Amino acid sequence: MPHDRIADLDAHWRAANYLAAGQIYLLDNPLLTEPLRPEHIKPRLLGHWGTSPGLNLVHTHLNRLIRQHDLDAICVWGPGHGGPAVLANSWLEGSYSETYPTIGRDGDGMRKLFRQFSFPGGVPSHVAPETPGSIHEGGELGYSLSHAYGAAFDNPGLLVACVIGDGEAETGPLAASWHSTKFLDPVHDGAVLPILHLNGYKIANPTVLSRIPEAELDAMLRGFGHEPIHVTGDDPRIVHPAMAAALDRALERITAAQQAARSAGSRERPRWPMIVLRTPKGWTGPATVDGEPVEGTWRAHQVPLPSVRENPDHLRQLEAWLRSYRPEELFDADGRPTEQVLACVPSGPRRLGANPHANGGLLTRDLPVPPLEHFAVPVDKPGTALHEPTRVLGGLLAQIMRDTARSRDFRVVGPDETASNRLGALFEVTGKAWQGEVLDTDEHLSTDGRVLEILSEHTCQGWLEGYHLTGRHGLFSCYEAFVHIVDSMVNQHIKWLRTTRALPWRAPVPSLNYLLTSHVWRQDHNGFSHQDPGFVDHVLNKSPEVVRVYFPPDANTLLATADHVLRSRDYVNVVVAGKQPCFDWLSLDDARTHCARGAGIWEWAGTEDPAKGPDVVLACAGDVPTQEVLAAAQLLRHHLPGLGVRVVNVVDMTRLLPREEHPHGMSDSAYDALFTPDRPVIFAYHGYPWLVHRLAYRRTGHAHLHVRGYKEAGTTTTPFDMVVRNDLDRYRLVMDVVDRVPGLGVRAAAVRQTMADARTRHHAWIRAHGTDLPEVADWTWTG
Amino acid sequence: MPHDRIADLDAHWRAANYLAAGQIYLLDNPLLTEPLRPEHIKPRLLGHWGTSPGLNLVHTHLNRLIRQHDLDAICVWGPGHGGPAVLANSWLEGSYSETYPTIGRDGDGMRKLFRQFSFPGGVPSHVAPETPGSIHEGGELGYSLSHAYGAAFDNPGLLVACVIGDGEAETGPLAASWHSTKFLDPVHDGAVLPILHLNGYKIANPTVLSRIPEAELDAMLRGFGHEPIHVTGDDPRIVHPAMAAALDRALERITAAQQAARSAGSRERPRWPMIVLRTPKGWTGPATVDGEPVEGTWRAHQVPLPSVRENPDHLRQLEAWLRSYRPEELFDADGRPTEQVLACVPSGPRRLGANPHANGGLLTRDLPVPPLEHFAVPVDKPGTALHEPTRVLGGLLAQIMRDTARSRDFRVVGPDETASNRLGALFEVTGKAWQGEVLDTDEHLSTDGRVLEILSEHTCQGWLEGYHLTGRHGLFSCYEAFVHIVDSMVNQHIKWLRTTRALPWRAPVPSLNYLLTSHVWRQDHNGFSHQDPGFVDHVLNKSPEVVRVYFPPDANTLLATADHVLRSRDYVNVVVAGKQPCFDWLSLDDARTHCARGAGIWEWAGTEDPAKGPDVVLACAGDVPTQEVLAAAQLLRHHLPGLGVRVVNVVDMTRLLPREEHPHGMSDSAYDALFTPDRPVIFAYHGYPWLVHRLAYRRTGHAHLHVRGYKEAGTTTTPFDMVVRNDLDRYRLVMDVVDRVPGLGVRAAAVRQTMADARTRHHAWIRAHGTDLPEVADWTWTG
Repeated sequence: MPHDRIADLDAHWRAANYLAAGQIYLLDNPLLTEPLRPEHIKPRLLGHWGTSPGLNLVHTHLNRLIRQHDLDAICVWGPGHGGPAVLANSWLEGSYSETYPTIGRDGDGMRKLFRQFSFPGGVPSHVAPETPGSIHEGGELGYSLSHAYGAAFDNPGLLVACVIGDGEAETGPLAASWHSTKFLDPVHDGAVLPILHLNGYKIANPTVLSRIPEAELDAMLRGFGHEPIHVTGDDPRIVHPAMAAALDRALERITAAQQAARSAGSRERPRWPMIVLRTPKGWTGPATVDGEPVEGTWRAHQVPLPSVRENPDHLRQLEAWLRSYRPEELFDADGRPTEQVLACVPSGPRRLGANPHANGGLLTRDLPVPPLEHFAVPVDKPGTALHEPTRVLGGLLAQIMRDTARSRDFRVVGPDETASNRLGALFEVTGKAWQGEVLDTDEHLSTDGRVLEILSEHTCQGWLEGYHLTGRHGLFSCYEAFVHIVDSMVNQHIKWLRTTRALPWRAPVPSLNYLLTSHVWRQDHNGFSHQDPGFVDHVLNKSPEVVRVYFPPDANTLLATADHVLRSRDYVNVVVAGKQPCFDWLSLDDARTHCARGAGIWEWAGTEDPAKGPDVVLACAGDVPTQEVLAAAQLLRHHLPGLGVRVVNVVDMTRLLPREEHPHGMSDSAYDALFTPDRPVIFAYHGYPWLVHRLAYRRTGHAHLHVRGYKEAGTTTTPFDMVVRNDLDRYRLVMDVVDRVPGLGVRAAAVRQTMADARTRHHAWIRAHGTDLPEVADWTWTG
Repeated sequence: MPHDRIADLDAHWRAANYLAAGQIYLLDNPLLTEPLRPEHIKPRLLGHWGTSPGLNLVHTHLNRLIRQHDLDAICVWGPGHGGPAVLANSWLEGSYSETYPTIGRDGDGMRKLFRQFSFPGGVPSHVAPETPGSIHEGGELGYSLSHAYGAAFDNPGLLVACVIGDGEAETGPLAASWHSTKFLDPVHDGAVLPILHLNGYKIANPTVLSRIPEAELDAMLRGFGHEPIHVTGDDPRIVHPAMAAALDRALERITAAQQAARSAGSRERPRWPMIVLRTPKGWTGPATVDGEPVEGTWRAHQVPLPSVRENPDHLRQLEAWLRSYRPEELFDADGRPTEQVLACVPSGPRRLGANPHANGGLLTRDLPVPPLEHFAVPVDKPGTALHEPTRVLGGLLAQIMRDTARSRDFRVVGPDETASNRLGALFEVTGKAWQGEVLDTDEHLSTDGRVLEILSEHTCQGWLEGYHLTGRHGLFSCYEAFVHIVDSMVNQHIKWLRTTRALPWRAPVPSLNYLLTSHVWRQDHNGFSHQDPGFVDHVLNKSPEVVRVYFPPDANTLLATADHVLRSRDYVNVVVAGKQPCFDWLSLDDARTHCARGAGIWEWAGTEDPAKGPDVVLACAGDVPTQEVLAAAQLLRHHLPGLGVRVVNVVDMTRLLPREEHPHGMSDSAYDALFTPDRPVIFAYHGYPWLVHRLAYRRTGHAHLHVRGYKEAGTTTTPFDMVVRNDLDRYRLVMDVVDRVPGLGVRAAAVRQTMADARTRHHAWIRAHGTDLPEVADWTWTG
């Protein structure tokens, strides 16, 4: 590379470093047109310098590569705490001022850029949703590489660079995601270029990968399926040409691999290039502060000079540091970047801060959800026929997969459970993505499959988030208990979506849809460790604008729910549904109406006198509780025929919340109309019972609400024994009714005893036979 | 190895395989003394065959190694769904019958062993707490290797074998834990021997690591710091000698590495041996079933022959399969294992099912917690002096570290935050464990340090769980928001502890203690992504017998809480405390009394007339809410001097629960005495406000309870702005009082306006200055 090109790159890098440091420190005097004084300094110094020069180096060199080759590229910045760097680059390339016109690309804009950073009412210190070009906040480390792969899937023209911090590389999610190399199709997917940035230290410690011999690191990365290219140095005169050469070589290898697969039909898995970049933490910042080494150590992690306002030495040191970048060469008198600084910067949508893939909603097409009629099960009479709801859903998903064969903008992900979760119809249409070795005994593997299965919930989630944030659709099918593995990831995604609601320039993206199945009530093979319905509680703590939770009780309600969530935008939808044979309760029409209401009375199941209203409400949410409630209603009909029973089924849990707390929340009058203000409500709920109280505690009738649910009484046992152990069974529900409806008299006491006897009979039977009572196993709704 | 020794090993292996299959299938006729009939078969076939023969092979060969070398060894079985295998081996070696005397090592015992497996009222299908010799359930895959390292730390004489499934190896937590090699001290720690078991398939898919070239896998494992030894085969005549030789070689390498470090003083990090074992899934089971290949494929994962009771062909095939092990050679007429079968089995506590390290409570010594007086801060008057609570705690932890220098049974773990969480005093006593390269700029690293820092919450948690379950003490210090990363891991640990409560032979182990700091209210550097107080909600969904949650509001209450939790057993204790300077409210004596009560009235802060009781209760939990409540109490004292205010502080959140719901729960009368049954309660809570409602919804005064807390209104801003954004600030609390106490009159309306004005003033001030109002920043309690 010619010397003058290197000088251009260095100018851009210095400018970005200057702007990054300026954001951390300066309230005013952005161009240092006068000597630095304490009042130019922010009163609270917040932000992370350490990683910023490295990110600036990568950004500068990606600019050059993109511009030279007219690349369609985005970058995922794993060390997201390096917000000052990415903001600096966006401002330099102009995308920042286009996104936020009040922050111009001039001296006044620079002053505002500096001031707003990590300042109340300003912008966050991380690479947040507010940052143009970002699909990755990077605050909680570990997800950069899976996000990058998610962005690359089905984007064959896209290059996704991904900076991985060496701290981040220690996390589990990141460690697992290296194996994404076995799932990326060189024909239909884009390329991911990992850049492992070893700056040596975390907050207070060296990083593991920076302190193993290079040969060991190299072996590990080759073991992940990569060809590593090493760039090491602390002298920009050496690092600039080395980095430029590394990127050129990486691009060559990527292009060659794609051409081999796309034109020459090679089926060999490419050993994708990656870059290992070793540069000092806090590079170009203060070498020592108060006698302690800072540059190249963990002390450079946040604010290298901590007391600039109070300590004149620190103030002098800061001024010398900032002037070391020679800002007068980088910005003209009006504060605009010079031509040299901008020489490497691409233009228009090629800029990293302006590429539409990083504002994926701009590229989103509506998902072609077919008419549900083709997949619905016929229901002439409720509770007589059985279907596996997820298998019925599988038909719908397969059709969507078929109808997106050309657009390739729909993926189903899961940890090895698509078939066991009964979504196998998908494999009539597409395969499971697989670039590893294939044996004769394998089924449904294909290099271009659009089902993604890896036994890492983290990787599944990261892939899907990256896919959504670049504008495409998907579904995550997961064991209910193990979706907790991604609790913290979904937190971050919800926070991201919530923040984008306030950013009009961010176009809505497809919702993140969970199908939680293999649920708590049916872990016959696995037992206690596989029983946890608490993910719903977790997400319902988060932003109500974003979160939706559904418990469709049968096949057709699952279809109606899926239809809704797959079309939606900017939500996190949690759908809990069974995969085991389950009674069909509602026809498709009824299911649609019921799901649209979110909660409603099943008149056909109740015995209330409309003039009087019910004596008791049996409410349910979830497939197993619904079955137990209907069985209880039938027992009551038989044993206490005079009792007015109302059956209420809840599909959308957030309907229980007050209107002020959630967009789907019911008004108090609607709630009272459904549940009554004063009658006992026995609520059979799929999960932890107190969730219902947490949602409904403000309601008039709350004192009359009695909730049954899962209370950690789990083990390997029969389906009915599970509900008995947790007091959610039909017999217990009838006993609850008897205990709570006043004035039922002697007859009711006898009924209660009959129910208690049935529970005793159950216990004896399962110990003897290992199966459920025939009267339970063979039960059907007879009305 | 001589042929007859191989024959002994093979006999043991066949016996274990027979017993594993028998558990899945047989209700009766355990020794096949008569032809197999449908009524001998379980009505529900549950369990996992696929991994079992591999686990049996490993167990058989570990037996031989242990016996031959008189090793002190345990094994962590990563593919925990292979319960039948581990149960079979425990029964063979006799540890099962010693633990459960009703299941004898004879024909009758074998029948019971078979029948109870995955049967209602029997034992779980996984390697559960019920399984002798287990410290790892293995239901949620990913934690085996970190558990193994946790067991090995500070157990220099122990060998911890660890079988890692190739499915499990895809998970993030497992992938991260390979780097534990950089933290294991060959002098003071034991050895971990990973055995990566590649049987090729998961539930429905090939595994990634079984389908990359062996050279790539080998490079990856060398990159993790291991020397891999490969054992591959499907012919036992080849695999037995190969596995025996591999174990011999591994043990030689381990012994050599330990001697080099211990005797020769080598400081070089050993390249620890490990074994890659490739054998077929479902090895020795049915090769094909109904024309489909089963052995060696994913179809062998659970129950290879699914319809034995109904399908005579399947029944015949099962009988042939079981007879292929030649049970008549393995068991005598009474069903006792023959001498040949037991030839390789070690005796007494050397047996894997009887080693006391796997029932760690047997080895637990009390932790020497020193007198708190040495560390407490003096408090003459509440709310005048400031201390950083975690820094004060650091002194106590350092003393414990000092006092356990010889016993080495206390560890502090955390993801790179011990120093930033102000626990730096520890480094005056011990270092951070580190076997990587060390530079001059590093601080506090040492090969034998007992602080463990890796930027993987999963690995921290796994290490500590393994350390606890083998009987030692510890503390996990973590960012509050990011402890959600281990939500699912703590689930499993809580389930484990709950299950052990019903197992009298399991001795109690030290509690798992979390210190959650860098909490939601003080994320000045990081903002929204670092703000999540929901871990408390998550754990409070779990077994109340196990879970404890504490919010000490200052330094001395933190000491008193730490004293309690560090001495406790079999709990998961969550302690949320600040690291920022915080007012000292209570002297050590008062702190002890207050923490013992868990919740109490702070008389000195209130203004109630004891004869009349309060007009309003200001309750608080958490350091920041406590400060805001006291500031609000002070404002009320000044502005509404006639108002009777009671201040209640809650340290132990479970006190709010009813007595029936939690062992710490308060009686209704105690609750009413504290909070009143009928006065407004304004509760300022650290986390999501609805948690308090979920705990207190059954209380008489619940309708008068108004909770303020974090409602996801987060960003990078000042500490006081954070509380204002979430309506938890002193001004809003006063407004809440005015709004809720009836009959306050005109004066109160003026006070309300004053408060609203103060909030407006705040907003203007931070926008202009970027700092908090001086009246807030300089506030102290003046009474």
